[in-house]
Amino acid sequence: MKRTAFFISDGTGITAEALGNSLLAQFGSIRFEKVTLPYIDNIEKAVEVVDKINLIAEQDGQRPILFDTVVDEAIREVISTCVAYKIDVFSAFLKPLELELGSHSSYSVGKSHAINEVNRYMDRIESVNFAIDNDDGARTVQYDRADIILTGVSRCGKTPSCLYMALQFGVRAANYPLTDCDLNSAELPETLRPYKDKLYGLTIDPFQLASIRHERRANSRYASLDQCEDEVRIVERMYRQEQLPCINTTHFSIEEIATRIMAEMGLERRLNL
Amino acid sequence: MKRTAFFISDGTGITAEALGNSLLAQFGSIRFEKVTLPYIDNIEKAVEVVDKINLIAEQDGQRPILFDTVVDEAIREVISTCVAYKIDVFSAFLKPLELELGSHSSYSVGKSHAINEVNRYMDRIESVNFAIDNDDGARTVQYDRADIILTGVSRCGKTPSCLYMALQFGVRAANYPLTDCDLNSAELPETLRPYKDKLYGLTIDPFQLASIRHERRANSRYASLDQCEDEVRIVERMYRQEQLPCINTTHFSIEEIATRIMAEMGLERRLNL
Repeated sequence: MKRTAFFISDGTGITAEALGNSLLAQFGSIRFEKVTLPYIDNIEKAVEVVDKINLIAEQDGQRPILFDTVVDEAIREVISTCVAYKIDVFSAFLKPLELELGSHSSYSVGKSHAINEVNRYMDRIESVNFAIDNDDGARTVQYDRADIILTGVSRCGKTPSCLYMALQFGVRAANYPLTDCDLNSAELPETLRPYKDKLYGLTIDPFQLASIRHERRANSRYASLDQCEDEVRIVERMYRQEQLPCINTTHFSIEEIATRIMAEMGLERRLNL
Repeated sequence: MKRTAFFISDGTGITAEALGNSLLAQFGSIRFEKVTLPYIDNIEKAVEVVDKINLIAEQDGQRPILFDTVVDEAIREVISTCVAYKIDVFSAFLKPLELELGSHSSYSVGKSHAINEVNRYMDRIESVNFAIDNDDGARTVQYDRADIILTGVSRCGKTPSCLYMALQFGVRAANYPLTDCDLNSAELPETLRPYKDKLYGLTIDPFQLASIRHERRANSRYASLDQCEDEVRIVERMYRQEQLPCINTTHFSIEEIATRIMAEMGLERRLNL
């Protein structure tokens, strides 16, 4: 059984998507075809959307589910004419919030994304640059300025986790790969010792590691299960021995890895929400 | 006037935050103190949250606003005892959705973040690596594989936009900086010519550019307003002359830049939602 779900917004559509995905994920037995339509910011586009939804309804033989975070009243009205089952986020919550806050909402688009906040923008760029400059242990001179330093074997998820933290939270995240020369013993490399308080270890299931490395360098020693098992065994011993906080990334998405590390380390965001 | 807003979840809290921020942004006159509490996944933590919220309510002299995407029934029940004004996302929408879909929801946490979807994880890592490998025009040999190539002067937002597209959409985004040697004329650099269909230009207000560059290299020619004005003038002429699609990043967040480019270029995500 297939249902089509639309995420529609006059802005980026990020909120409609996040909410819609969370809700739909609760219905594991149904296959959803998902369509995001951002920047539906004039009547013409709204009319097109209605046509599109009605067409899909016919094709599917079932009305689509519509998650709508359009703010503009006139556009909402057009969209409301389509045949979809509508989850209208602003209608549901904005009126009651107005009452609670004793204030009228401004019903304006895109306010959530700090328009023209140059400082916020610069903080983010600064953090992204920090993550790139301090990727893969290339340099360690900036570790003093790091909020956190992720460590672990090659391909266990350090780089994307650092970049996610930089983009989403403005946190300065460096990463240091534990390579063969570091793994002769289960002791922490000298370079990392002064920064032990900022260290956080990643580990991963050796099978998955081998499969990820295989994509990068097929049939290499680097990607062999033997090598992956050895490396993971040694780093996990190191984490235990040094009592480093750590996470097994195998079953987590990058969002989850990043938010869990933030929570566990009590890291403060540098970006205001 | 200050109100505290809590975003509470037994998962990452990303949905509660996205929804809460969108709604609160409609009340520009009120200053919100925002607190995200992710991974509230047992009764003990839930009790702590209730204490915390009630304490803040006393301190503020006003009840906080609570955005709640906790799935677990027992935890929800505990949290519902706090004094906050509650916006309970799952209560509001999950029951009606069950009726519409003719299916029971599984009420389980974290389903939205594709657990154990190794392929999805690898696609993201692959795209992040692509963005890093092809950052700043360092190499152009992989441009054949790029889904999109952002261009523009130094510090106009290319790198964070590419990384955001990689992480969020799994898109392979390269970027090529237009430097002094490219800007002797308003013609497209030779290197880029074969990839014109994939090119997208960024531009920016020269004042903001100067201020961003100043952070990087204070009082340099590079950061001077004169230099920034010259560069921006030439690239904008180039975009017009070559009829490149482009965006002025000055008033946009990275999310907005990335989602607008995706929409305008009709780029397909490589990540399934």
